[in-house]
Amino acid sequence: MLEPRTLKGFPDYLPDEQSARQFFFTQIKHTFEHFGFQPMSTPVLEYKELLTGKYGDDEKLMYTFTDHGGREVAMRYDQTVPLARFYSQHKDKLSIPFKRYSIAPVWRADNTQKGRLREFYQCDVDVIGSTSTLVDSEVLACYATAFRSVCDLKLRIHLSHRGLYSTLLLQEFALDEQSLGLVLRAVDKFDKQGASGVREYLKASLASEEALKAADVMLMLGTGSSALDFLENNYPALSDVVLEVRQIIQNAETLGVPSGVLVFDPLIVRGLDYYTGMVFEPRLPDYPEYGSVGGGGRYDNLLGIFGGVSVPAVGFGMGIDRLFEVLSDQGYLKPISAISVVIFNLDDNLKTTYLEILQSLRSNNIGASLYYSPHKLDKQFRYAEKVQSKYVLILGAAEAEAGTVKLKELSSRTEFILSVQELVDFIKKV
Amino acid sequence: MLEPRTLKGFPDYLPDEQSARQFFFTQIKHTFEHFGFQPMSTPVLEYKELLTGKYGDDEKLMYTFTDHGGREVAMRYDQTVPLARFYSQHKDKLSIPFKRYSIAPVWRADNTQKGRLREFYQCDVDVIGSTSTLVDSEVLACYATAFRSVCDLKLRIHLSHRGLYSTLLLQEFALDEQSLGLVLRAVDKFDKQGASGVREYLKASLASEEALKAADVMLMLGTGSSALDFLENNYPALSDVVLEVRQIIQNAETLGVPSGVLVFDPLIVRGLDYYTGMVFEPRLPDYPEYGSVGGGGRYDNLLGIFGGVSVPAVGFGMGIDRLFEVLSDQGYLKPISAISVVIFNLDDNLKTTYLEILQSLRSNNIGASLYYSPHKLDKQFRYAEKVQSKYVLILGAAEAEAGTVKLKELSSRTEFILSVQELVDFIKKV
Repeated sequence: MLEPRTLKGFPDYLPDEQSARQFFFTQIKHTFEHFGFQPMSTPVLEYKELLTGKYGDDEKLMYTFTDHGGREVAMRYDQTVPLARFYSQHKDKLSIPFKRYSIAPVWRADNTQKGRLREFYQCDVDVIGSTSTLVDSEVLACYATAFRSVCDLKLRIHLSHRGLYSTLLLQEFALDEQSLGLVLRAVDKFDKQGASGVREYLKASLASEEALKAADVMLMLGTGSSALDFLENNYPALSDVVLEVRQIIQNAETLGVPSGVLVFDPLIVRGLDYYTGMVFEPRLPDYPEYGSVGGGGRYDNLLGIFGGVSVPAVGFGMGIDRLFEVLSDQGYLKPISAISVVIFNLDDNLKTTYLEILQSLRSNNIGASLYYSPHKLDKQFRYAEKVQSKYVLILGAAEAEAGTVKLKELSSRTEFILSVQELVDFIKKV
Repeated sequence: MLEPRTLKGFPDYLPDEQSARQFFFTQIKHTFEHFGFQPMSTPVLEYKELLTGKYGDDEKLMYTFTDHGGREVAMRYDQTVPLARFYSQHKDKLSIPFKRYSIAPVWRADNTQKGRLREFYQCDVDVIGSTSTLVDSEVLACYATAFRSVCDLKLRIHLSHRGLYSTLLLQEFALDEQSLGLVLRAVDKFDKQGASGVREYLKASLASEEALKAADVMLMLGTGSSALDFLENNYPALSDVVLEVRQIIQNAETLGVPSGVLVFDPLIVRGLDYYTGMVFEPRLPDYPEYGSVGGGGRYDNLLGIFGGVSVPAVGFGMGIDRLFEVLSDQGYLKPISAISVVIFNLDDNLKTTYLEILQSLRSNNIGASLYYSPHKLDKQFRYAEKVQSKYVLILGAAEAEAGTVKLKELSSRTEFILSVQELVDFIKKV
């Protein structure tokens, strides 16, 4: 007999967890759709050659194999490269700008650790085909609204703009593209290694004095509106980008992001090479140890990888498994039950009556279950509690005689004696 | 530049299709939950050794490979074997009887053909841990209700019972288990090869005269209640099983299956070896060419494969991709749009007003989108039609001056002039 077990990083989800997860997905889907994003889907397996060369060093984490027809295939590693493939293949049939969402698992053979699985979900939103900064604001508002639809945790979205770095380094400091890349890679290490780590990395990479100075501007800047003021006042070439950042924040707030959630933070650069404009990272100020719960930004060059021409795009991925982890650790994850009533089985002769009541409840859109066998009452109670039913319905020979049912609320143990006719109305009214 | 393409049998789903698919999944999920089934989930990859030896010859269709840690792994091939693994691993934490559902993709390297994909969805329902025939009825009612929640097609559920064969052959014809297996395998070919095919197969397999006679009883029986009468009257040993079949049908009808949907059909045996009792196959009488749209039954021995002891179980899988295909071919598949209003962009100076209206609609639970750039009107109209919006909202300098908006219903081209304050109420009332 083989021992039943799962692979490391590939969890099972039991009903309590899975019901909470599905509730999240439904809420998030609802928000995405109300923001005008349309669902689409790509398969789990793709030709490996189409994903190759898109993920840098991380490519080695991709699950790949040879299929029955001798084709080299790969499991979905993220949702952005498949989107680029999808867009390039189907763009004539899509509404442009194409506002899409996709909630789907991806697979990465990463080291497993707390909060890092090998099979995990991404909730992605992308707008393709518009250069308007309204898109940047809408995507930020969409993140904040989706987040708020599933939890009450304090949210702070750290936001910056790649254009600040490129303009500062290329124009104000007259550096070259190579130095720019170096500084971005260095600053990306701030989170883990601090300012001194950034400087050491730059020195070790033989960065110029000027590049170090430029990096220092950002490292010393601080966050928020006053940091934007400082850039504007001291580096005139940055005024357009600063204005853009201010407008993006302001418009996102008009779209419902509460004041204080969006914070300018120049040290957000996002590791991925493909970002070109606004970049952001949502974090939980009350639980900094969990890191970011997603990330996104504008990436105007990526979509061109399959089509040749560059296509403007803005999007985000919501780190939903990380968020689950926080909520679960903090005791905020509640199982969701669709079952309002468990009908107890007290007497096999009343089977047909039980079935009739069951059907009457369900056809009135009330979730209900019947305990199949006339087991002892305490066993039936345990079952009803385990499936998180609101009520149990007790109907034995005496009640049948009287034409009534006993409805017991599990939380309060309050009992209600009702006629079968009153039952549906009673539950619906609650 | 690589050509963007998908693997054969691994489709992309564009928004029109995907929105219709998601609507189906939501409806089905809702039915399953109202029947008291709880969600759970197993990972896409499992240890290959746990799936090996469970699918007979079809095992060669399983996608398997060696992962980064040298483990032999396999992609989910169905949802029943993983359920057996899951149940055996977690049973102490589950409510028993365990009523579970799972809607998830599976992968099979089968020959692709019309209606057969390599990545496809299964909507599975199972009840584990009860021998009551109420479970059989409930599972049938659940299928019929889920089916009806997504389409109006005529449904007929062909139903039989493995016990009819075992009692007829072992008791009435005094045959052995080997003959029983042979007859079941032969009758399973009826659908494709007819009665003569069944008889030829039996002769070729050197079945006894008595086995041929027993098979003939079933082949000549016909369907429906009179076929049950015939069995009862002529083979007394079958009376218990016949009664069970009648009760299963009657109780399922009490649970809402319309009369005439459930039809006794002795030629339903279901190929899979693991069924032990009631078996059924839902079909579309108006579209017989598509074959069955699911299947299920009682399988009291399968769940024991990981735990040693046999555990009673009843379940079904809904062939949702097949059903999509029928509905799509017949023009019944309608895209679902959550967007009620597309706000046109006529004037960049009114940006803030557009955003305010957008936010006011969304915060009142009205799906809305803003066309980001002030392009030509016909382009904006095409966009609104493409995303299936109900209305477009027109607000230019003149309307802004007057404090009104023009709301145009796309289907009828009817226009309404409203104040911004009236807008939300107007749309909500419709």
